[in-house]
Amino acid sequence: MYNSDTICAISTPSGRGGIAVARVSGADAIDIVDRMWRGHALTEVTSHTAHLGTIVDPATNAPLDQAVATVFRAPRSFTGENIVEISVHGSTYIQQQLITLLCQAGARVAEPGEFTRRAFVNQRLDLAEAEAVADIIASSSRAAHRLAISQLQGHFSAHIDNLRNQLIDLAALLELELDFSEEDVEFADRNRLLNLATSIRATLLQLANTFHSGHAITQGIPVAIIGRPNSGKSSLLNALLCADRAIVSDIPGTTRDTVEDTIDIDGITFRFIDTAGIHHTSDPIEQLGIERALQRAANAAIIIWLTTPDETDLQALHTTIAQHLSTHTHLVLALNKADLATEAAPILDMQSKAVTTAKHHLAISAKTGMGLDHLRQTIAQLATADLPADESMIVTNARHHQALLAAAESLTALIDGMQTLTPDLLAFHLRAAIDQMSAITGAITSDTILHTIFARFCIGK
Amino acid sequence: MYNSDTICAISTPSGRGGIAVARVSGADAIDIVDRMWRGHALTEVTSHTAHLGTIVDPATNAPLDQAVATVFRAPRSFTGENIVEISVHGSTYIQQQLITLLCQAGARVAEPGEFTRRAFVNQRLDLAEAEAVADIIASSSRAAHRLAISQLQGHFSAHIDNLRNQLIDLAALLELELDFSEEDVEFADRNRLLNLATSIRATLLQLANTFHSGHAITQGIPVAIIGRPNSGKSSLLNALLCADRAIVSDIPGTTRDTVEDTIDIDGITFRFIDTAGIHHTSDPIEQLGIERALQRAANAAIIIWLTTPDETDLQALHTTIAQHLSTHTHLVLALNKADLATEAAPILDMQSKAVTTAKHHLAISAKTGMGLDHLRQTIAQLATADLPADESMIVTNARHHQALLAAAESLTALIDGMQTLTPDLLAFHLRAAIDQMSAITGAITSDTILHTIFARFCIGK
Repeated sequence: MYNSDTICAISTPSGRGGIAVARVSGADAIDIVDRMWRGHALTEVTSHTAHLGTIVDPATNAPLDQAVATVFRAPRSFTGENIVEISVHGSTYIQQQLITLLCQAGARVAEPGEFTRRAFVNQRLDLAEAEAVADIIASSSRAAHRLAISQLQGHFSAHIDNLRNQLIDLAALLELELDFSEEDVEFADRNRLLNLATSIRATLLQLANTFHSGHAITQGIPVAIIGRPNSGKSSLLNALLCADRAIVSDIPGTTRDTVEDTIDIDGITFRFIDTAGIHHTSDPIEQLGIERALQRAANAAIIIWLTTPDETDLQALHTTIAQHLSTHTHLVLALNKADLATEAAPILDMQSKAVTTAKHHLAISAKTGMGLDHLRQTIAQLATADLPADESMIVTNARHHQALLAAAESLTALIDGMQTLTPDLLAFHLRAAIDQMSAITGAITSDTILHTIFARFCIGK
Repeated sequence: MYNSDTICAISTPSGRGGIAVARVSGADAIDIVDRMWRGHALTEVTSHTAHLGTIVDPATNAPLDQAVATVFRAPRSFTGENIVEISVHGSTYIQQQLITLLCQAGARVAEPGEFTRRAFVNQRLDLAEAEAVADIIASSSRAAHRLAISQLQGHFSAHIDNLRNQLIDLAALLELELDFSEEDVEFADRNRLLNLATSIRATLLQLANTFHSGHAITQGIPVAIIGRPNSGKSSLLNALLCADRAIVSDIPGTTRDTVEDTIDIDGITFRFIDTAGIHHTSDPIEQLGIERALQRAANAAIIIWLTTPDETDLQALHTTIAQHLSTHTHLVLALNKADLATEAAPILDMQSKAVTTAKHHLAISAKTGMGLDHLRQTIAQLATADLPADESMIVTNARHHQALLAAAESLTALIDGMQTLTPDLLAFHLRAAIDQMSAITGAITSDTILHTIFARFCIGK
């Protein structure tokens, strides 16, 4: 059913604006729009040209709007099909009527993601690139946007294809052996196979390992602030918020205001996690609550331990905290209210000696703004510290992450059985790894996977 | 200052969508976009062509997005200047960054309506047509949309120009007389002048008279439902709402849901006004409340008097009502709950004899839906009964209405003084009428008027 008919949708954000753009894609797109077009005949114009005319109701000849129609002829279009983009005045009435007229003329309303799905089916994009389109539209920070753009440009797909081709080379060797299995000839050098498979598996796992940070960049990096009650957590959040909210609120419609404590720093979105106040106590009930808070904090990518100048002995508290956070690599000790201390440096020095698990120590004041730039820099650096410099080597998509792990698992079965398994079983594991890699870029995909992927798109894309 | 520089804005509705379109207009528009463009050099392409490329930050060469740029060269563009329309993925981040990059490259953010203002200044649209652009974007019903489209097509302006030209012909005759005033020659036949001025004034007033209904069509036609408490007003509104709300809610972002009791019927928006229940009473306090409700109802364009089969004597109530509504021409008597009466016809007949001011009588049932189509037809007809069939003869804009009344007033001064005033005073009144007519299409306008008109536009138009 897909790709046989002509689809249409308003591709611009919903609501009222200066202009709105409807997209029509399919073999009959140009003919269908031409039926409701008064102006230069669209059926005769060359590809990639824009024309001023009037959209009319063909039944009554009543004008709907002055419009600009841009014609893209197959295969030189986003979907690879004939496309007409109709730019009209952005009233909700006109947008609604335009879609109604297009449907009366033979188009149907596109499903979410159907334009991009057609682009994939017509090999204008591979699957990972198509998924990047949805990520680009969803991205609201510079870091998330850069990852998605890198993926759309096909760099990630190129890495995956390269690994997949190496696996296919291995498979060719193994399958040659299968063809001559009766002759008991070993074409494939087992040691060479083992080395190659081990090296590819290492690369796959390395890629998969970037998912935790890569996914966090697209969803917001979790940051926990721990510390005694009144150590100034809210003041710190407000101070960070004030400076940076202005950056994200330039464009109306940004919905981050509804998400509490989400802050953009240096182009990266951070999600500040609410934790209970943490203090030294002998009350077993209170201890239980604090332990729970610490467990939540331990799952955050970054932890800020907020102290005040009057906390001269952190040793007892640190013992409790160290139980949960001793292995956490991104713990930052921040001495707040440092403007109140005559000498902040010695206090910070003393505190940091107590908190040995914290590799970063700094003195700040949420009230005066002192040290906040340093804090911003520190957490922005920590957020990307685990990521490879090459953005195309970062996995942000849960489906890709699953596929990489599954491919690595198949390679493990191959490696473990290299000396014991028959060539056809080895080939089976190798083939499974190849299939998993193929699913990422869409060289092999089921209709169910396609449906799941494109259903998360917005209408009109 | 206007028109010397290059402006930019996101012209599509705010928020996230499949695509978003930025418009750049001005002498340097093509050069500015070309600086951040990787693809075919936009400075070399022909007008009205679309090109696939990449928007980059020229400082870092970092790609922002794949984009389609469509170039319109002056004067063949909406503004009459060079325009580049950049279609990007509709993430809020990309939209924001694109505007930032354009500003860094030398453009500035457009003020509301500035694109349309430039179109006016460059004589691509006259003022009434430019105002129609804002009306088109704001229109949410078929009727409001048709009026705005008719105005954008210049039919209204043509009428105004025609009347204005007739006045200019008159003025030419009078001014010829002024040139020869020392010779005491009367070139202009006073009777002919009188007849022409009287006829033009009649047309002006006829146009001005359409404003009340024309304005109501764009804002929603006020309808009052009067009747005893429990006559079924809410049920009627719900019944009308259910049938028609589906029509307006196809497109998300339609905000009418927040406006209570606004209903589209036959493409026209009706605003149902809340009035207190009206019944016969001797309590002077209650009478006062009822009188107030009737005064509000009297201002509505249409009044529905809702009765029930058990109201067998409306005479007493009618006397009260008639005081306020006897001159109202659009009173509809609707016998509700007619499904409960064994014989609705005789009751309706009896009631309508009592309510002599109502020219329309019908039996309905909000519960079963009986007669509702007839009621819809009736109020849709009444809404447009006072309007000329030619939509371009309908005034919807308060500024135009004021100008027409002022022009008619100047003509009255001319007509009244035809036999007594000196030729130069007659010419003065005539010139005033011409100036008022000129202001409508913008042949003569002050900067203040322009500012007021274009400030009500949305950004990007």
